[in-house]
Amino acid sequence: MEIIEGFSCPVPFSKYDKILLAHGGGGTLMHDLIANIFLKQFDNPFLNVLHDGATFELNGTRFAFTTDSFVVDPIFFPGGDIGKLAVNGTINDLAVCGAKPLYISSAFIIEEGFSFEDLWTIVSSMKTAAEIANVKIVTGDTKVVDKGKGDKIFINTAGIGIVKNGINISPQNCKPGDVIIINGNIAEHGIAIMAKRLGLEFETEILSDCAPLNGLVESILEVSNNVKMMRDATRGGLASVLNEIALSSGFGVLLDELSIPVAEQVKGVCEILGYDPLYIANEGKIVLIVDPNDSEKVLSAMRKHPLGEKSEIIGEITIENPGLVAMKTSIGTKRIVDMLSGEQLPRIC
Amino acid sequence: MEIIEGFSCPVPFSKYDKILLAHGGGGTLMHDLIANIFLKQFDNPFLNVLHDGATFELNGTRFAFTTDSFVVDPIFFPGGDIGKLAVNGTINDLAVCGAKPLYISSAFIIEEGFSFEDLWTIVSSMKTAAEIANVKIVTGDTKVVDKGKGDKIFINTAGIGIVKNGINISPQNCKPGDVIIINGNIAEHGIAIMAKRLGLEFETEILSDCAPLNGLVESILEVSNNVKMMRDATRGGLASVLNEIALSSGFGVLLDELSIPVAEQVKGVCEILGYDPLYIANEGKIVLIVDPNDSEKVLSAMRKHPLGEKSEIIGEITIENPGLVAMKTSIGTKRIVDMLSGEQLPRIC
Repeated sequence: MEIIEGFSCPVPFSKYDKILLAHGGGGTLMHDLIANIFLKQFDNPFLNVLHDGATFELNGTRFAFTTDSFVVDPIFFPGGDIGKLAVNGTINDLAVCGAKPLYISSAFIIEEGFSFEDLWTIVSSMKTAAEIANVKIVTGDTKVVDKGKGDKIFINTAGIGIVKNGINISPQNCKPGDVIIINGNIAEHGIAIMAKRLGLEFETEILSDCAPLNGLVESILEVSNNVKMMRDATRGGLASVLNEIALSSGFGVLLDELSIPVAEQVKGVCEILGYDPLYIANEGKIVLIVDPNDSEKVLSAMRKHPLGEKSEIIGEITIENPGLVAMKTSIGTKRIVDMLSGEQLPRIC
Repeated sequence: MEIIEGFSCPVPFSKYDKILLAHGGGGTLMHDLIANIFLKQFDNPFLNVLHDGATFELNGTRFAFTTDSFVVDPIFFPGGDIGKLAVNGTINDLAVCGAKPLYISSAFIIEEGFSFEDLWTIVSSMKTAAEIANVKIVTGDTKVVDKGKGDKIFINTAGIGIVKNGINISPQNCKPGDVIIINGNIAEHGIAIMAKRLGLEFETEILSDCAPLNGLVESILEVSNNVKMMRDATRGGLASVLNEIALSSGFGVLLDELSIPVAEQVKGVCEILGYDPLYIANEGKIVLIVDPNDSEKVLSAMRKHPLGEKSEIIGEITIENPGLVAMKTSIGTKRIVDMLSGEQLPRIC
């Protein structure tokens, strides 16, 4: 793709001259935006890996560094709030880089008129989340914008962690035959948010799966040196993360629909609302690519952890369909699972 | 101050039950917010230093870590834009911790409908600013919010730097007799923003002083091991930064009004608009507290740097007026210079 002189936009963007909600949705439009604006300008070997965080060596120690802004709407939802989400989101991005999360920053953009009581509750959730994951919130910032120029509260967290020697997480490590594992039911965060927005009521409330994954990742890395790749399946859901892995590894992914854990209730809500759980955001789900020789011991370690009791092998890396995700469906057919296109649930995180 | 049970707000906040613009203004209300909400919840020795960033040791190396969100309005202004500001702001926060800035994250919250052309221009400014300061933008995030739920674009940058051995920057190091130095004219960023907002036109345009201070700081630390404290004087201006230093050092500050560099044109605009330049934001001004024995060599090193040509000694640390900032005025009287109270210029950075 060529760039037309000076500060002009790269050519492909003549198609979109304005930002759409879908550019923040974790799917194809977001990937276009990243590839054509951010990577074009900020081009460097750390950023170009396109993982959930950057890793680099400084004075002999390997670090991971990541950032995320949180604009979830509503800010309080079943199973969490924007504060818990902001801390766990950054912890998880560090964890899937193979890092032990240590220090977190927190920066607030607050709309004029926001209630102190709500701010106190949110900050209190952040404190609790940080304590549970054993990280420290060490630096911060507060900005206030005029009423009507923000939406209650946006939170950015950045985080630093240390990557232990010998850990090498990268899509380039994936090989045909590697096994794909997930630590439990998918789609619960997105459906919890959507249900709250729509005012839906269920017999049993669907809770966001928002949780810190660093402890689970630690227990996995204790039993195996053959974890090739880890990602948390947030915006764009399981389908988008697996598409990213397929694209960057150069191999295919074959999923087995029947083995993907989804709660019956979530499946039901998805059917009613016309959503595919594969594209719904999670906030406590990790996708692992593991050497087949280690898959059983990894699975067994995961199932012993409270956040991994429902872990399942859901597919494998294949030579067929390079760069694509295919799925053996529950009725025995095979279909291609694309990356999310357009925007399914805006402002999910 | 006591906290009334559970998630309730600390008592003093019954006075304000809602966030005001001034809570983000860098003055007394922002300090109340930080002290009564963030420090109460996130209490830890790193955060409690209340510098522009946190410093900590990991595997034998001393690091600085900082974050800032930028919500400046307008996003393009004379002398810069929100992108340049976001990169330089974080570089400067690291520099005044005595750190060499290395890696920066960038997280965007974009309002639906924002133009790709403007995004490209802003990202291009960030790239240029990073190159000039020799830092790398290594990780990022993009969120899009619905039209009317944001304001064009907000950018968060967090940054990591390394603090060289032997550098110890802390208000606790300040002693009576220490000299206060600034690297040039104050109040230019705030006035440039305000002029743009009001549509004021001048014969010579007033430009924001937005600049990366890491090179200047490096040249200062090369000639002196006796720099006690450094701060960049952003929101709340020179007055608020010096009040913070006075409060945290436990000593007084005595300023000499006549020696504080202010461009005539800025002075004129401030008089017309009723602003005090001491409270107006800067984005390229560093305030140093230096041992008197080193002040001349520091001053001379600063004046050789393009960003320090107009450096001046503007005051000293005193035993008198502990915790306060006093100023010998141009007419020979002495007055107390309070911390900014209320909000002078919202959304300046």
